[in-house]
Amino acid sequence: MATQTVNMNCHGWAARDPSGVLSPYEFNRRDIAADDVSIRITHCGVCYADVVWTKNYHGDSKYPVVPGHEIVGLVKEVGPNVKRFNVGDHVGVGTYVNSCRDCEYCNQGMEVNCVKGSVFTFNGVDADGSITKGGYSSFIVVHERYCYKIPENYPSHLAAPLLCAGITVYSPMMRHNMNQPGKSLGVIGLGGLGHMAVLFGKAFGLKVTVLSTSIAKKEEALTLLGADNFVISSDEQKMKALAGSLDFIVDTASGDHQFDPYLCLLKTQGAYVLVGFPREVKFSPASLLVGMKTFSGSITGGTKVTQEMLEFCAAKKIYPKVEVVPIEYANDALERLMKKDVKYRFVIDIENSLK
Amino acid sequence: MATQTVNMNCHGWAARDPSGVLSPYEFNRRDIAADDVSIRITHCGVCYADVVWTKNYHGDSKYPVVPGHEIVGLVKEVGPNVKRFNVGDHVGVGTYVNSCRDCEYCNQGMEVNCVKGSVFTFNGVDADGSITKGGYSSFIVVHERYCYKIPENYPSHLAAPLLCAGITVYSPMMRHNMNQPGKSLGVIGLGGLGHMAVLFGKAFGLKVTVLSTSIAKKEEALTLLGADNFVISSDEQKMKALAGSLDFIVDTASGDHQFDPYLCLLKTQGAYVLVGFPREVKFSPASLLVGMKTFSGSITGGTKVTQEMLEFCAAKKIYPKVEVVPIEYANDALERLMKKDVKYRFVIDIENSLK
Repeated sequence: MATQTVNMNCHGWAARDPSGVLSPYEFNRRDIAADDVSIRITHCGVCYADVVWTKNYHGDSKYPVVPGHEIVGLVKEVGPNVKRFNVGDHVGVGTYVNSCRDCEYCNQGMEVNCVKGSVFTFNGVDADGSITKGGYSSFIVVHERYCYKIPENYPSHLAAPLLCAGITVYSPMMRHNMNQPGKSLGVIGLGGLGHMAVLFGKAFGLKVTVLSTSIAKKEEALTLLGADNFVISSDEQKMKALAGSLDFIVDTASGDHQFDPYLCLLKTQGAYVLVGFPREVKFSPASLLVGMKTFSGSITGGTKVTQEMLEFCAAKKIYPKVEVVPIEYANDALERLMKKDVKYRFVIDIENSLK
Repeated sequence: MATQTVNMNCHGWAARDPSGVLSPYEFNRRDIAADDVSIRITHCGVCYADVVWTKNYHGDSKYPVVPGHEIVGLVKEVGPNVKRFNVGDHVGVGTYVNSCRDCEYCNQGMEVNCVKGSVFTFNGVDADGSITKGGYSSFIVVHERYCYKIPENYPSHLAAPLLCAGITVYSPMMRHNMNQPGKSLGVIGLGGLGHMAVLFGKAFGLKVTVLSTSIAKKEEALTLLGADNFVISSDEQKMKALAGSLDFIVDTASGDHQFDPYLCLLKTQGAYVLVGFPREVKFSPASLLVGMKTFSGSITGGTKVTQEMLEFCAAKKIYPKVEVVPIEYANDALERLMKKDVKYRFVIDIENSLK
């Protein structure tokens, strides 16, 4: 209906069906309410979640799906009650844009664990019943509580991946006390999340071993990312030599894989954190019981720890490695992401390509 | 060889082959060394480990196997360097009788996690190459480090089950901060370990829910053990009502079972501790990741926490529920244990039946 699009206030790219193919799409964002911030989007990171919901992998996609939950931009308007932001501020929005704001978790700044469920940034059902639309778009309107200050001088295109990939590994690393210099960390998988785990590990003063299935990633892991060690997980001899030597493991692999060979690498009382999303977790009880090991899971993080992470990245000059692409490349980017052909995160240059 | 048995100093019962059938067996214990304590055994608890190694379930049984690692008795002789014990003292020996005494874990009183491996109380290979023999016997010689003081007035027959069943649940409960009054605990399985978890839970001031497959255990769980709630795990409606309500779960079930239905019962940041030994652990990542839950394993505990537990049980008047049987009943006891037909631990009255 061409007549309808005339009134639409937001340009975006959306998938219309499970083919997942993205194309230009016009829609309406709500008017800003008293506590809202309206953000002109400049950059949006490309996360595997964008594949999952544009292609309806979970069977719950609500088309049209405008993906994107690693959003950075500039404040263009604020509601009368907004306290933390002014027009022109550099801000970010992550994986959720609403929550009950009244439960024990919301009250601790852990909104991602809201007892009523946080509202995802895209393909979520918001409090007013509308379906949320993400950052592959020209602007977004968000309650200020779910906006982050991007530290001064931190580049926008590098800030974007912090808002999902970064916080997803930072939050459990902090929760499990992985910021103890001198301790040893294993990182399974070297994609968007894994490369952030390596960068945080080095910033925390850890000895970092990358565990990968691909020898092609070795040189960059050691030189570009600064890992101390690189082991191909199918190399039984090297894996055996590593047994019982790691304090922590962050597992970012989303593909199905074995767990016992990695659990064996942990020291007594070692901590294993899964942030990837394989179809199932399966291991022998002996791998965990002997040695009092801990296996945990985590998804992104609350607003409190997210803002802390942004400050930490600025203070320590931690910068994700990204490939900046125009919106016209979005379909190719998703295809390449599915093939793990990205070093290490695509970021869409919304500002210069989405007109 | 009848002539050889004349010189044997210790009477016991042993299994000679994977039938697991126990019968009288004479063997030699070592002479006491400078740091050793010789203990006249009065009681020995019957643990599922006794079934595992008398029947060679792990393929590593070294026959003849004299089982038993919940040992209580009286000191009958001490070596010249022994400092902590005197003749006549009430003492216990648990699941291990040696370790390197020189690693970071031994130095912290966590000998069960010795980097060179602790030596199990029976079917273990000791430092001198001999095969250790357990508590279904008249006496035992042990380095004093691996002996515990049984608190004054604590009944010997009740102290025995603390040395494996008790410490196996107490140690992880303390490590995972389950001693916070007002919090809620789920206990899966109500055998030797499970009933101790209920007793400790109540002593810690927790609200305790027993999760069982058998309605027959309900009344005793509530009245005799003092649990607050009892849920049949196949009752989907009751399980659904319990979702997201527990702070902690201690899983004592050794049979194969699902994990997802139980993980769902945990609150955000809830802790699940496995102390049973099913063939495998398998669950959906979502059960763990959404809600930042932790899944851990544990086996018994070091000497430090074991002695602490004994003092705690005496101070809080925590007493295992046992069925005292003579040594002649040992084969029946193991058979009944395999059928879970015991409330809640067999204890062999070595003192009055092993002549």
